[in-house]
Amino acid sequence: MYLGIDIGGTTIKFGLFKSSGALDKTWTIDTNREFDGMFIVNDIEASIGDNVAIHTLKGIGFAAPGPVDGSLVIEAVNLGWQNVDLKAIFEQKFPDVPVTVENDANAAALGEAMSRPDAYQSMVFVTLGTGVGGGVIIDQKIVEGAHGVGGEIGHLQVVEHGVTCNCGQTGCLETVASATGIVRIAQERFKTPTALIKDTMTAKVIFDLAKDGDAFAVDVIDYVTDVLAKALQNIAVIIDPDAFVIGGGVAKAGSFLTDQLKAKFDKIAFSNTRNIPIELAILGNNAGMYGAYHSVKKEVEA
Amino acid sequence: MYLGIDIGGTTIKFGLFKSSGALDKTWTIDTNREFDGMFIVNDIEASIGDNVAIHTLKGIGFAAPGPVDGSLVIEAVNLGWQNVDLKAIFEQKFPDVPVTVENDANAAALGEAMSRPDAYQSMVFVTLGTGVGGGVIIDQKIVEGAHGVGGEIGHLQVVEHGVTCNCGQTGCLETVASATGIVRIAQERFKTPTALIKDTMTAKVIFDLAKDGDAFAVDVIDYVTDVLAKALQNIAVIIDPDAFVIGGGVAKAGSFLTDQLKAKFDKIAFSNTRNIPIELAILGNNAGMYGAYHSVKKEVEA
Repeated sequence: MYLGIDIGGTTIKFGLFKSSGALDKTWTIDTNREFDGMFIVNDIEASIGDNVAIHTLKGIGFAAPGPVDGSLVIEAVNLGWQNVDLKAIFEQKFPDVPVTVENDANAAALGEAMSRPDAYQSMVFVTLGTGVGGGVIIDQKIVEGAHGVGGEIGHLQVVEHGVTCNCGQTGCLETVASATGIVRIAQERFKTPTALIKDTMTAKVIFDLAKDGDAFAVDVIDYVTDVLAKALQNIAVIIDPDAFVIGGGVAKAGSFLTDQLKAKFDKIAFSNTRNIPIELAILGNNAGMYGAYHSVKKEVEA
Repeated sequence: MYLGIDIGGTTIKFGLFKSSGALDKTWTIDTNREFDGMFIVNDIEASIGDNVAIHTLKGIGFAAPGPVDGSLVIEAVNLGWQNVDLKAIFEQKFPDVPVTVENDANAAALGEAMSRPDAYQSMVFVTLGTGVGGGVIIDQKIVEGAHGVGGEIGHLQVVEHGVTCNCGQTGCLETVASATGIVRIAQERFKTPTALIKDTMTAKVIFDLAKDGDAFAVDVIDYVTDVLAKALQNIAVIIDPDAFVIGGGVAKAGSFLTDQLKAKFDKIAFSNTRNIPIELAILGNNAGMYGAYHSVKKEVEA
């Protein structure tokens, strides 16, 4: 059995997998963020003890919400952690059980890539949430990058003369294609009569109105998908993945989003990259847990 | 011994390497482009026979000037080839000798990555020549991509409202940062007095004048490096390589180019990617030959 554990800011998800890949059991515990998250590790250990016969464990994979260098979680603001080496800690607690640690967006990318009927060799995962994140998979492995920045899709600078991003740079994809970015764009453009109410706009409301044909909302989404298509085009000529997979809250707009995106991508795509499919994520909030499992399984079986 | 063979439109370069990596011997033959390049394969076979004891050969790596799918050279306009399977052909001629085939820009990227004192795990090679090409190396392997488009850096769409590229799309890096692009930019802007003569501009002349402080030429190069820095920024947040390496004819401008590029990249780079070095290529026209050798060596020793 393998354990995949996704440590989030409010919940920690556990998945116990058979070596075949079948999910045997899943459960969650609350994340205790008190005292800079110092109880989290003990809570996880206790929960493993309560739910798993340790001697059956072949590996534990973690997904953590922050930059990871090797097995070190450099910083996880949502947990209060700085420089926590999960591998060192858990290999002390369970000496014979190999441990891997991945950034949660990267783990989610691996989970999505491996969970298709035919697992992708290469795939780029784009999460459109409060921010824009993602992960790059090549040869069924996470591209972490030399500084842990691999897959930081949200910081592709694809808007000329764009606004300043949280990262300090300007024109980042995240300023347009995140839930926050979509609302910002709509509020900036808010002039003409529309069914939208300026102060209560959300990305979901804008998408819903666009689906109903509201001209203003259609126009906002049209701009957002233009920018997103350009970002995917740029990724395509660098690594030419088997597929793009779109996840995160904004992706709940479903095929209304991906169909529009695919049509625009096809128009600007270089050569045969126009054959790259653009799909919706299938694992939802479990992607990180699945990816954590696949990561440790790969390491153990390598 | 391993053979690395770079098939170019005018010359075919052979490099005989010891397993240690030392280059034992190198020679060239002319490329016979008559009759759709149908003599090229026999010329290569004869030249191998003249120069190498076949029984000492552990592998032959090819670099070919066109898109490659597996071992099939889909098209090589400069040779007159279409759908030539070099592996199938040469494994028939030399049954016990493994063969690999790579696109020449990809092979050059691998050659540059592997030829540093500490070989890079990941690296992005950008060639600034008549066009802009390149190659992406991750885990010391070429990222070919699902459609052979990996590393087509020249078709990053980084110029808003840009001119149409040879590929049919607009705003591609190649329209600005190739030798042709640099001249185009200069000719478009040619109004004010300058030491340049409009009709005889070349990228080299423009760089030389910029080095001498000619305001017009400085301005042109300033724009070109702005666009190039943005392209590298976008690559950095996707795969965060150990290094960027710049080659091709335009890179003969040397550190004048890379220093300016690095300063601009640092200003717009996301987070720690600003630590990614931007270096000049070191293998010149031999990069493809070296990369072809490394490719087959890796396959044999895997």
